[in-house]
Amino acid sequence: MITVAIDLQERSYPIYIGCGLLAQSHLLAAHITGSEVAIVTNETIAPLYLDQLLKGLKGYRCAEVILPDGEQYKTLEILTQVFDALLTATFSRRCTLIALGGGVIGDMAGFAAACYQRGVAFIQIPTTLLAQVDSSVGGKTGVNHPLGKNMIGAFYQPRCVLADTDTLNTLDDRQLWAGIAEIIKYGLIRDLELLTWLEQHMDQLLARESSALRYVIERSCHNKAEIVAADERESGIRATLNLGHTFGHAIETGMGYGTWLHGEAVAVGMAMAADLSQRLGWLSTTEVNRVIRLLEQARLPTRAPQAIDAARFLELMAVDKKVIDGQLRLVLLKELGHAVVSNDFAPHILEATIKNAR
Amino acid sequence: MITVAIDLQERSYPIYIGCGLLAQSHLLAAHITGSEVAIVTNETIAPLYLDQLLKGLKGYRCAEVILPDGEQYKTLEILTQVFDALLTATFSRRCTLIALGGGVIGDMAGFAAACYQRGVAFIQIPTTLLAQVDSSVGGKTGVNHPLGKNMIGAFYQPRCVLADTDTLNTLDDRQLWAGIAEIIKYGLIRDLELLTWLEQHMDQLLARESSALRYVIERSCHNKAEIVAADERESGIRATLNLGHTFGHAIETGMGYGTWLHGEAVAVGMAMAADLSQRLGWLSTTEVNRVIRLLEQARLPTRAPQAIDAARFLELMAVDKKVIDGQLRLVLLKELGHAVVSNDFAPHILEATIKNAR
Repeated sequence: MITVAIDLQERSYPIYIGCGLLAQSHLLAAHITGSEVAIVTNETIAPLYLDQLLKGLKGYRCAEVILPDGEQYKTLEILTQVFDALLTATFSRRCTLIALGGGVIGDMAGFAAACYQRGVAFIQIPTTLLAQVDSSVGGKTGVNHPLGKNMIGAFYQPRCVLADTDTLNTLDDRQLWAGIAEIIKYGLIRDLELLTWLEQHMDQLLARESSALRYVIERSCHNKAEIVAADERESGIRATLNLGHTFGHAIETGMGYGTWLHGEAVAVGMAMAADLSQRLGWLSTTEVNRVIRLLEQARLPTRAPQAIDAARFLELMAVDKKVIDGQLRLVLLKELGHAVVSNDFAPHILEATIKNAR
Repeated sequence: MITVAIDLQERSYPIYIGCGLLAQSHLLAAHITGSEVAIVTNETIAPLYLDQLLKGLKGYRCAEVILPDGEQYKTLEILTQVFDALLTATFSRRCTLIALGGGVIGDMAGFAAACYQRGVAFIQIPTTLLAQVDSSVGGKTGVNHPLGKNMIGAFYQPRCVLADTDTLNTLDDRQLWAGIAEIIKYGLIRDLELLTWLEQHMDQLLARESSALRYVIERSCHNKAEIVAADERESGIRATLNLGHTFGHAIETGMGYGTWLHGEAVAVGMAMAADLSQRLGWLSTTEVNRVIRLLEQARLPTRAPQAIDAARFLELMAVDKKVIDGQLRLVLLKELGHAVVSNDFAPHILEATIKNAR
């Protein structure tokens, strides 16, 4: 087992990475407050891992909340089911919520924990590659709104993250590939060595070789840990973690949540950010092609859906958390391995990127 | 104008108290971030004060969210209307939410501000006595759940509180009296001088004499400021501010939100807390009668509704944020002016208090 530490003073916590961790209940026990534990999971994950988790929680009064599976259920309305379950079980302010699932479950359980009785303890057990390398770490929680992704939420840190790599064995390929998108992201924004490694070892990763998985999860968590520790509430550098996300969120919202996987939309978004960076003279054609080729190696899409025309795409992008006083800001690449947040692009250049991507 | 400071390090803020403050737009301007302002108010307050407020906000892009009036609308479902309005107006993370109204509006607007894009700036303009002396100060925000009051929310501090005492002129008597309940609360838990003052000056307060109003608002805010500064997130002393509230919440939830005013339910709750404190040998009969008499002077109820029987009352009380590991804790009075949080009472004594109150 590897431990990566997230350093946030009194909100610091460990990420445990390894195989067979679900069975090691002492890891959880150290981070559970009180005697009441609510496990928030979904219909896909519950039959696979819920019993195993419950086995390690014998001493606690446990409640289960099983939500439908998919980004389209990441809503305030479905979140109500968590509150209903907690209150029906008369769970107190000293209860602990455990998210057992992918990014959607982690975001929803985390937001529920942030709000229930104005804040209760929270543990992340990510079961997808995307959640293990990105969304379970750093405290971003929330739900979608029909008009925009992740528009309602909170910064709320977990007490620990337990990434059991065994859970990746049941992941379908599309989910695995979507997770790789966020790993490529770390390479592009700040970790050229990781980028090169991915180019050379993509086959091992696609074959789910355990050493390859462990390497990318640990490396991704280290990258995320450094950024989050430097800027917990995204007033600066943390925004670079959103490379491809403004484009990607437009695709997810525009196509209807759940149609595209988050990682797929982010992959296209990163290709678009590379394209825009090239138009600004920052990346060469060779470098952009290197980005596209790596995304393709990971079986990820690089072109935006025809169903969203350029005008609609721009409209969808206007609702983004990085907009300041009407100015859209995007994460772009000064060079491979070096991301910046910039509003220094002419509208017609952004339009050209959108048109070129379709 | 009087200014009371809430000292919470980087979250510190001023409470401005005085007449004619709504017209003094520079007070707000100093605390507004960005160029977008959303005013959250209700159907009762909007016709009275919205135009006046908007007049001072000419330089900003303003949105208005007018919610229905009453505790029964303090729900996640109605809260959605605020998010809908903010996103329809494409308001960014740099927008400012202003709560213009009583406790319900303040709690909802504050919670919306805590969650919108994971947190935007927030200003309280309380227009009821209860909100001016209590709920607008200290950062408790949230909504009700059918199974329990204020069960979903956040600690989220405003940038400033602007208490314009002129707005109390349009308050109906029942609302005025309900506000006095929370002022009596400060007297009972920590401010005997205020308690004595209230006994001697209740007529002036009921007649809304401006000097009397200003005195109780300032004194209440000072009391609240000291407690909140010492214990922002209610891990200790802040819980004493909930004197009468566990009983009161049971009445509000049991009778259906909006049937009883919050202050009315708290008044009965304080009478019950005094009764229980007497049963524990802490208060004398004379002291309990003093509490009852003061509540009656303020035209407040002191007896619980017949419609909730004792068993149901206990069940409703079991869902309370002060419950720890199944143990109900109550704010009780060691003596007048000295509150404690205690679980040191036999179940039959609590039952006797409930039965006696009906």
